[in-house]
Amino acid sequence: MPNRSYAILGTGALGGYYGACLQRGGLDVHFLLHSDYEYVSKHGLVVESIDGDFTLPHVNAYNDVSEMPLCDVVAITLKTTQNHLLPHLLPAVVKEGGVVLLLQNGLGIEEEVIRIVGPQQQIIGGLCFLCSNKVGPGHIRHLDYKEIKLGEYAPNYRPCGVTEQMCQIATDFERADIPIRMVDNLLQARWEKLVWNIPYSGLPVVLNATTDELMADLHTRSLIKQLMSEVVKGARSCACTISDDFIHYLLEHTDKMKPYRTSMKIDYDEHRPLEVEAIFGNPLLKAQEAGANLTQLTMLYQQIKFLDAKNCGCVAKNY
Amino acid sequence: MPNRSYAILGTGALGGYYGACLQRGGLDVHFLLHSDYEYVSKHGLVVESIDGDFTLPHVNAYNDVSEMPLCDVVAITLKTTQNHLLPHLLPAVVKEGGVVLLLQNGLGIEEEVIRIVGPQQQIIGGLCFLCSNKVGPGHIRHLDYKEIKLGEYAPNYRPCGVTEQMCQIATDFERADIPIRMVDNLLQARWEKLVWNIPYSGLPVVLNATTDELMADLHTRSLIKQLMSEVVKGARSCACTISDDFIHYLLEHTDKMKPYRTSMKIDYDEHRPLEVEAIFGNPLLKAQEAGANLTQLTMLYQQIKFLDAKNCGCVAKNY
Repeated sequence: MPNRSYAILGTGALGGYYGACLQRGGLDVHFLLHSDYEYVSKHGLVVESIDGDFTLPHVNAYNDVSEMPLCDVVAITLKTTQNHLLPHLLPAVVKEGGVVLLLQNGLGIEEEVIRIVGPQQQIIGGLCFLCSNKVGPGHIRHLDYKEIKLGEYAPNYRPCGVTEQMCQIATDFERADIPIRMVDNLLQARWEKLVWNIPYSGLPVVLNATTDELMADLHTRSLIKQLMSEVVKGARSCACTISDDFIHYLLEHTDKMKPYRTSMKIDYDEHRPLEVEAIFGNPLLKAQEAGANLTQLTMLYQQIKFLDAKNCGCVAKNY
Repeated sequence: MPNRSYAILGTGALGGYYGACLQRGGLDVHFLLHSDYEYVSKHGLVVESIDGDFTLPHVNAYNDVSEMPLCDVVAITLKTTQNHLLPHLLPAVVKEGGVVLLLQNGLGIEEEVIRIVGPQQQIIGGLCFLCSNKVGPGHIRHLDYKEIKLGEYAPNYRPCGVTEQMCQIATDFERADIPIRMVDNLLQARWEKLVWNIPYSGLPVVLNATTDELMADLHTRSLIKQLMSEVVKGARSCACTISDDFIHYLLEHTDKMKPYRTSMKIDYDEHRPLEVEAIFGNPLLKAQEAGANLTQLTMLYQQIKFLDAKNCGCVAKNY
């Protein structure tokens, strides 16, 4: 079995963590960086982790995609707000017959990627259950969880089972000590993750609150449940069945979590653009196209759009 | 025609303004005060107004309802958040055969008042279109508008036409240079006012924005329209018909207004309790009882309830 090469497009809290794990696991990893490029090319990466700290004094660091080698697996680990860069980045690094591994939240991004790389290229979606921060240049702090759910993408999110390349990538990650769950229906997995992500990404921004405050108040707790039900309704309109028990399970699970500032709230507080379209806009659009009218999710989307525009309207952001 | 006596329960921006106008118009007015009592009993009231400033060096000021005379007309000019005081205040000042004049926003308060004063007492609702502030003790600044819409209350908000006592009160106010419009359907008038009040009271608090910002953004403008449509739907469930043209008219009217911090936003910024139940909770309940499901208004209510509890949870407020 060949030693697959990995490109990590976006070496932040998520890409930096998974890329470092893969390199430590013996794989050939190539990191695209922007602001941390100088520092990381000299000093490598440092990972502080609940599973044990480690450092990689030398990594293959790039600040220009044209200098990167073509890779077998190209992991997109940017925030979706940077996806306007993909038409420039992807063609330069994806090997023919290689895989684009889309490690982003939300819905509909695979459809953007396939328009860039063409239908002959394989796209695998990955849903990361990871809690990590970048605390300094090339310095990642891994706080909790790390599992990835992998699912193959086929046009229109048609379920297409577990493929050989999914298994190969799973083997690479598991060798790097990252647990993998393979799913045969990527769309279903994406909708399931949105059941949590939509209320807990949106409401903390709109109401300036942590998850535990929202759970403790009867009105917002009830609103969270309603929003979850709307997401389930949206999923159903796309032929994905999610049971009410799942909502119940998520609420109980969140009750047990420590007070938590979700990543969209962190982005908002730091005046970074929010992943509005991937998390809210695209699911809403898919549901609307399928004839489902999600009024509360629409309202949340409109509120977040307003706040996002006001919050970073005057701040220039680079990748 | 007798010189009717007026009690003003709550001498703030609204009660202070209308009460001062009535006294200047020659009526016998009795003002209930709390924090400004000492000052106003010594110095009276000062009104700065776009229509001309005036002072009343002497007014009948009280800080205890038991010392007030029974009055022909008892105007409730407190915020609805102080309505828990009404069972104590009203019976002490309403003359038998007198009128309770309810100058508060929102819906359903007449039903609370009738439970206090009994069904034999006459209740007239008044919707104040007034822009005024209290800028110091006994010092009112009147900025714009002043019209009052009067409507008689009958149980279950049954429309009951224009009554003689409405006409008498209208005459008193008009003599005091306050324009009056009399309506034969109080419930209709209250729902109509809510079409504006609900979006423009709620969204500025939730989104920390002024009316003009909300109108300029396409997403929130659209949300305002949706919320207005839901209020119209709620009105319809209570047999009050409001046309789509009215929404159009309100939007155009608001476009022409100067940037405006609505009174609920001012209350929120000053950590005062919000009129959540009168403006959002009661209309929602009435619509629900009539079988109308107003999902976006529900969400707005839940958001405001959360913010209100957090905002003044630890601040003691007195009337």
